[in-house]
Amino acid sequence: MFEVAELGHKISKEEYSKQVPKLRSALLDAQEDLKEANFPVIILISGLDGSGKGITANLLNEWFDPRHLKTFAFGESSDEERERPEFWRFWRVLPAKGRIGLYVGSWYSDPLSRRAGGKISEAEMDRCLQRINVFEQQLIDDGALIIKFWLHLSHKDQKERFKTLSNNPKTAWMITRMDKKHLKNYDQFRRIAEHSLRTTSTGKAPWMIIEATDTYYRGFTVGQHILARLRAHLTKDLLCQDQPKSQEAMPALPPKLTILRGLDLKQQLDKDTYYKKLETYQSKLHALARQARKQKISSVIALEGWDASGKGGVIRRIIPALDARNYQVISIAAPTDEEQVHHYLWRFWRHIPRAGQVSIYDRSWYGRVLVERVEGLASPQEWLRAYAEINNFEEQLTSHGILLLKFWLHIDKDEQMRRFQERETVSFKKYKITDEDYRNRERWDEYEQAVNDMVERTSTEFAPWVLIEGNQKRFARIKIISHYCASLEKALS
Amino acid sequence: MFEVAELGHKISKEEYSKQVPKLRSALLDAQEDLKEANFPVIILISGLDGSGKGITANLLNEWFDPRHLKTFAFGESSDEERERPEFWRFWRVLPAKGRIGLYVGSWYSDPLSRRAGGKISEAEMDRCLQRINVFEQQLIDDGALIIKFWLHLSHKDQKERFKTLSNNPKTAWMITRMDKKHLKNYDQFRRIAEHSLRTTSTGKAPWMIIEATDTYYRGFTVGQHILARLRAHLTKDLLCQDQPKSQEAMPALPPKLTILRGLDLKQQLDKDTYYKKLETYQSKLHALARQARKQKISSVIALEGWDASGKGGVIRRIIPALDARNYQVISIAAPTDEEQVHHYLWRFWRHIPRAGQVSIYDRSWYGRVLVERVEGLASPQEWLRAYAEINNFEEQLTSHGILLLKFWLHIDKDEQMRRFQERETVSFKKYKITDEDYRNRERWDEYEQAVNDMVERTSTEFAPWVLIEGNQKRFARIKIISHYCASLEKALS
Repeated sequence: MFEVAELGHKISKEEYSKQVPKLRSALLDAQEDLKEANFPVIILISGLDGSGKGITANLLNEWFDPRHLKTFAFGESSDEERERPEFWRFWRVLPAKGRIGLYVGSWYSDPLSRRAGGKISEAEMDRCLQRINVFEQQLIDDGALIIKFWLHLSHKDQKERFKTLSNNPKTAWMITRMDKKHLKNYDQFRRIAEHSLRTTSTGKAPWMIIEATDTYYRGFTVGQHILARLRAHLTKDLLCQDQPKSQEAMPALPPKLTILRGLDLKQQLDKDTYYKKLETYQSKLHALARQARKQKISSVIALEGWDASGKGGVIRRIIPALDARNYQVISIAAPTDEEQVHHYLWRFWRHIPRAGQVSIYDRSWYGRVLVERVEGLASPQEWLRAYAEINNFEEQLTSHGILLLKFWLHIDKDEQMRRFQERETVSFKKYKITDEDYRNRERWDEYEQAVNDMVERTSTEFAPWVLIEGNQKRFARIKIISHYCASLEKALS
Repeated sequence: MFEVAELGHKISKEEYSKQVPKLRSALLDAQEDLKEANFPVIILISGLDGSGKGITANLLNEWFDPRHLKTFAFGESSDEERERPEFWRFWRVLPAKGRIGLYVGSWYSDPLSRRAGGKISEAEMDRCLQRINVFEQQLIDDGALIIKFWLHLSHKDQKERFKTLSNNPKTAWMITRMDKKHLKNYDQFRRIAEHSLRTTSTGKAPWMIIEATDTYYRGFTVGQHILARLRAHLTKDLLCQDQPKSQEAMPALPPKLTILRGLDLKQQLDKDTYYKKLETYQSKLHALARQARKQKISSVIALEGWDASGKGGVIRRIIPALDARNYQVISIAAPTDEEQVHHYLWRFWRHIPRAGQVSIYDRSWYGRVLVERVEGLASPQEWLRAYAEINNFEEQLTSHGILLLKFWLHIDKDEQMRRFQERETVSFKKYKITDEDYRNRERWDEYEQAVNDMVERTSTEFAPWVLIEGNQKRFARIKIISHYCASLEKALS
């Protein structure tokens, strides 16, 4: 695979000096067009030590308008990063639409160096690469252009390069002991790199291997390749914008088959039992939550349900058992403009709390496959792929040790109407009811279908849906809080 | 001062149960109105150990709609926080307009406990309190409502409270060794607290001392006080919105007196000298920047200047000397909607980089006293107080060890026109010129006055303005880069 980058590619200084002004002006033009476009550009500069990653990044900063390009390097994780799932540190620095993010070292660096150092097995490495593929695919699905460079040096060239750098007092600092060790293990590292590149060279995000020996060739080829990919993507983006989003949905199942119909909504608790149980579970939850805080186990609770199904009431029964310094209630409404120009999951990634916290979501990332689907705010393509994206997101949360609970609060149509009417008459509940609530009600069947699909496709082993029979608020509240207690207890043991 | 909170205030359980539903409903109503209002609410819950700070925070979370209220507690700083100025961790969690931020422990906690522990002198404590006063005043000037509670216990009551908590196995964990030590030093802590409260009880942000012995009295009084303050502020806010912003500015000096007129714009460098100096300084800067990175000394460079004064060109001459992994160029345009609902300095606070980084601002926080002043986007009140706010902001940066440089790139009106016309004819510079540039030009004299005032009021010992004679680009670039070198050299020694 690397042989093609050991052929001695070169460009003369004269040719370089002649071509670069044209290339630069074309890159600036493309960047100008990008500002209006609907996608971000992610450029990775990876490669061997001494292959000129830093120099290449500097060059691109000079060629592009650096005000609309951000460069990131990843050293050791900060404590705030370590307290979140692995990819959090990358999500937090993804570029917005119309912008360029340049990554020197990236999500590949850590797996590569850990594998080279013998700290992870080949199987573990493959799992890392698999996660990277899924991550990149999500960004690509959202429209991102990902350009990945691998700067290659032959063993001989790397040796020589190190020698030159070492002998020059101005550059000797660049060579660390680690680099020297890498040089020794050249063949092994080459094998690992080749395997990684092969595994992650996908159709939409292929690796571009660049022979890095000749500085002029390296820089110019990188620039040219970026220009070509960017131009092609801009053209595609423009064509897509002209086309109306296809709104053709999957054939719907007859509504009577939904999983919600099977729930026994008649279940009730009498007042006495309710208050007794509530007290028992609240005090149990209090003790468990304190323990979880100590053990730095976070909880993420996603509450979904029909309008007026009682989500707020559930939250008000949970929080007295918690410490206000230790939880946050997050209400999901329309995204801000900063959120609008990122992948739809970005707004959820950015609010992932530090270790030991409880986050209660009043509506959640499931909006994508519920309201956005039904109201046509997301195209069928978008919401159909969201199931897998959400499963992946949740898998990352739970494998980081976060306890994730998802509740669907179910009521029937009659009960909803009864509650709407009640709200109209109680003064301090009046603000809760709007015309939109009545409009949503008209699409009950479509929502029911969407809920059914959601449960079917995102009830996973690590994050199963819990359906709550909610026609009686007392019953629903106890079922949720007792379930939270049981899950937390299990997580702590 | 605390005697008024040792009078044995009490409310019976019956009275409490009768009043609370009314209070709660009134708080919810007020919170609903707040959503549409133009200010944030900041509530601090401070006080002695065992006085019920956590319980009070929990109570407020139950009474308010927790989806529009966020609670924060501040433990030890994270490494990301320690790498920024002290107040960064508070700025990052300030509530947006229309929202409530509840702080259990706050900017007071650290100074108080350090003073009580004898780690800082009384003079240092006073400086801390002074900084707090300035911080709070800035938020108040921007419209924020700040409500500060101090929960007080007499020595006897604190002792009893500790005993009760210790004896109950369910609550014994609440009493730490530190608390016991505090109890011993009750009198000393009381003196320190009294001094702090007196120093920071300002007209707009007075401390409210609450007798904390009786749970019902404590909770109810806190809630009532919040309601009263919030309602009063809502009324005031409504009245202010109806009034047109006063646009009456200070009497302007005759423009010919401005400091800019004194600059010798004829200064030049010939081509050979320029290239020689550029190379010398770039390689010098390269070495210095590497050293600064090692020593974790950050640079913040603010570039201001007329349209077409060559800011971009300066940036392109600086960055080749830096490592792209180590700097960011930040272009200041219109704020995002998340930024719009915070104090205008919030957007600059949030982007303060970690230690050892270089941030180059193409335009900066000075927009407040330049474009926002001249175009009437900020009221005279707002931009007049911005001078002090900016000085304070910069003082915090520099006293954290950040090297802060501010350049005003000056050209005359004829030179600007020449450059505009040049831009119109060069294809890849065309996108740089818009109608707005010509419109701004018509207000040259007003801008000149604004620049003059800005330099006069914000050229401080710790962050002086450097005026750059910019009619010849070569001269300007060398002056800036050589100044950066000299300042960095000084900072490193």
